[in-house]
Amino acid sequence: MRDAMSRRIIIIGANAAGLEAASAARKTDRDAEITLVTGEPHLAYSRCGLPYVLAGEIPSFQDLIVFPPSYYKMMRLEVRTETHAVSINPKEKKVELKSGREIEQEEYDSLIISTGASPFTPPIKGLEKRGVFTLRTIEDGMRIKEAMENAKRAVIIGAGFIGIEMAHAFREHGIEATMVELLPNILPAALDRDMAQAAQRVLEERGVRVLTGTSVEEILGEGKVEGVVAGGGRIEADIVIVSTGARPNTELARQAGVEIGPTRGIRVNPRMMTSIQDIYAAGDCAESYSLLTGQPTLSQLGTTAVRMGRVAGINAAGGYSTFPGVLSSAVTKAFDIEIGSTGLTEVQAQRLGFKTVSGVVTSKTRARYYPGGKDIRVKVVAEPDSGRVIGCQIIGGEEVTQRINAASIAIQMGMTVWELAKSDTCYAPPLNETWEALTLASDNAARRMKEPR
Amino acid sequence: MRDAMSRRIIIIGANAAGLEAASAARKTDRDAEITLVTGEPHLAYSRCGLPYVLAGEIPSFQDLIVFPPSYYKMMRLEVRTETHAVSINPKEKKVELKSGREIEQEEYDSLIISTGASPFTPPIKGLEKRGVFTLRTIEDGMRIKEAMENAKRAVIIGAGFIGIEMAHAFREHGIEATMVELLPNILPAALDRDMAQAAQRVLEERGVRVLTGTSVEEILGEGKVEGVVAGGGRIEADIVIVSTGARPNTELARQAGVEIGPTRGIRVNPRMMTSIQDIYAAGDCAESYSLLTGQPTLSQLGTTAVRMGRVAGINAAGGYSTFPGVLSSAVTKAFDIEIGSTGLTEVQAQRLGFKTVSGVVTSKTRARYYPGGKDIRVKVVAEPDSGRVIGCQIIGGEEVTQRINAASIAIQMGMTVWELAKSDTCYAPPLNETWEALTLASDNAARRMKEPR
Repeated sequence: MRDAMSRRIIIIGANAAGLEAASAARKTDRDAEITLVTGEPHLAYSRCGLPYVLAGEIPSFQDLIVFPPSYYKMMRLEVRTETHAVSINPKEKKVELKSGREIEQEEYDSLIISTGASPFTPPIKGLEKRGVFTLRTIEDGMRIKEAMENAKRAVIIGAGFIGIEMAHAFREHGIEATMVELLPNILPAALDRDMAQAAQRVLEERGVRVLTGTSVEEILGEGKVEGVVAGGGRIEADIVIVSTGARPNTELARQAGVEIGPTRGIRVNPRMMTSIQDIYAAGDCAESYSLLTGQPTLSQLGTTAVRMGRVAGINAAGGYSTFPGVLSSAVTKAFDIEIGSTGLTEVQAQRLGFKTVSGVVTSKTRARYYPGGKDIRVKVVAEPDSGRVIGCQIIGGEEVTQRINAASIAIQMGMTVWELAKSDTCYAPPLNETWEALTLASDNAARRMKEPR
Repeated sequence: MRDAMSRRIIIIGANAAGLEAASAARKTDRDAEITLVTGEPHLAYSRCGLPYVLAGEIPSFQDLIVFPPSYYKMMRLEVRTETHAVSINPKEKKVELKSGREIEQEEYDSLIISTGASPFTPPIKGLEKRGVFTLRTIEDGMRIKEAMENAKRAVIIGAGFIGIEMAHAFREHGIEATMVELLPNILPAALDRDMAQAAQRVLEERGVRVLTGTSVEEILGEGKVEGVVAGGGRIEADIVIVSTGARPNTELARQAGVEIGPTRGIRVNPRMMTSIQDIYAAGDCAESYSLLTGQPTLSQLGTTAVRMGRVAGINAAGGYSTFPGVLSSAVTKAFDIEIGSTGLTEVQAQRLGFKTVSGVVTSKTRARYYPGGKDIRVKVVAEPDSGRVIGCQIIGGEEVTQRINAASIAIQMGMTVWELAKSDTCYAPPLNETWEALTLASDNAARRMKEPR
């Protein structure tokens, strides 16, 4: 029997956003009944780790499980795995749950939709063939791992972060890897062409074949994939990964009458409230807002999911928290390089109507005379009139992540390139050059614009 | 014969600040006659690298020389080594230079004083004995290197950055190392006691003996050092390093009537102008201003020196540039840990009249499930009423430097802990935890203060 006095919170989707929401809700309301519902058979796991399991860097998929069952017990979170939310009745504040053949109506006081996203696949002939995969779940990962055992040649459609991480995974197992990207450069959401070309050169040096500005017209093979036709030519392949983005899972929300935003994500306000009272949304299924433009955007990053989830959980449990928005700060590591980005690329900024000016510098990660220093290339994008930093892209052998975070903070705080160029950075010979590359890139950008007024 | 039309710039002191000033002056005025004067026999070198040569991580002292002679030729910089500036005559705008027995009067249009600092040694009996060293110059380094060849036990007086780097250097050569610090914790200028104790534990695990709150009363030995008396007890030593700070070299400036500030550094305005027309100062001999308090401070860091030098060089050559001030961001690496700090420690802040609140978090540098992650501990210091971040201290196995830079930017921009706790950080399993430690520490600090108004 449920306690009539305690708040009942149901969370649909139990990965990054859902689990974080549940934990935050528990910390906000010690007495709430909190139920996590997931269609998957596993407790919450890190999707971001899947390519690194496939690369052999993480021993097992089981390692990605975030918390053992004891955590859920300690936090008094009820988890229903392999359970699907069929529909929401906002008037009666009920959600219909289906587990096997069983269907139940569950009442909620607060409902959090964290249904995530599903791989988007472009309409290519032959996608249904054996050996063609998308990578989203542990099950996807297991199927790919099995297929990799006998694979010699892989084609990756889409050169985003997951595409690059999969290219790395294949090369680690001695599998030939060809990335095919429709747009003119790899990582188009994160890098401008100049930076993307620098990253591409490194990937090519590590044995990845990269085709940009190239569409995949067909997947060939009798039942099982044997190759693809891309840009008119044939590429042999016994495994194909389609990593061309993900679409928010909004069907459940839509059917309940929850408003969907222009990005196809669930529309939320800064408290993660949807258009319907007591229904919240968080994670890959939900829209966020750009800290730079105020416009809705789909971030679809693990970092954004947990931050949204925390806010949704606090509010759903009767607390007060707001989510300020995103800069889409992202980073990856493939082979021996790290690639990161925050804010807007020049192309994105220009498309949004910003004038842009940029500064690029190539430097080292340690003092010139200290052994083991690695190349690092930093690009700072700024708005010429205000001088405001609006984006940063970095490729380097080490120390990229926290530079992206520093740039993200600078962008969030409205810092100008003149300020960033003179910021008080630190240095020691084993750890950096005397002049920090981020400040030098800002200085280069500053030289291309009018002096500050 | 000098060209009567071209600007004559003399720079006294040719290391970090002086060389940077010369290069910036050349870029500002292509026709200026630029002379660098140094009492040392070498071209500019990186002092910060000296302990790492002694540790054996950098092959030779010669590697620390910043530029080959060809650079000076290309930049048309005249360098006079082993030349001392004896006096300045500001009325006639002349400086008296002494090289061997030769004395010359040189006219200047702009003069830059970048005379650096000299080791400060406390009044301890026996400092003159053989085997007692300070570390400032390449010659100091060479003497220490020679002494290390037969040394078995070292005592280091003063547990600042150089002290710790020397402890590391000694241990790398199997020499016993004891650090003796008068103040209650190591790195008192950079760390609060809680963080210092965490750092101390790591150093101790690496075989360094650490005595805090302990004064060295005497250096023992017949001619050559045999030990020290510290805190009443005797410590055997065949080598002693005194690393108890440095005092600005201001004698030349003082004699010329240049105003000295309350920190004993040469007083400068944001353009690095001293109290006397056409005389500039930069580097360890000059004062800077705290970005947090506006108060004069002695930074004495290589990063500050080059930034001051650049501003002085631009202004001395007829350009316009300002130096915004410092946060004393500093980092070092010793053994396998990195220690960094920016802004004010809690102790420093309280001494300056700030109320403080802090948040500390211990995290990992990679996802929990990704192999090789290292411990990292982050402390954020904030002002409780405004919520403004005023300091940050970090100890970790990797990725400390750029976190300090991120915190430095946050402090410079007046960021609050509420903002920093929600900043848009990036993550990938090999590179960070999902929740960035700097944001978690800020969140912890935020929980200890009133909600934002």
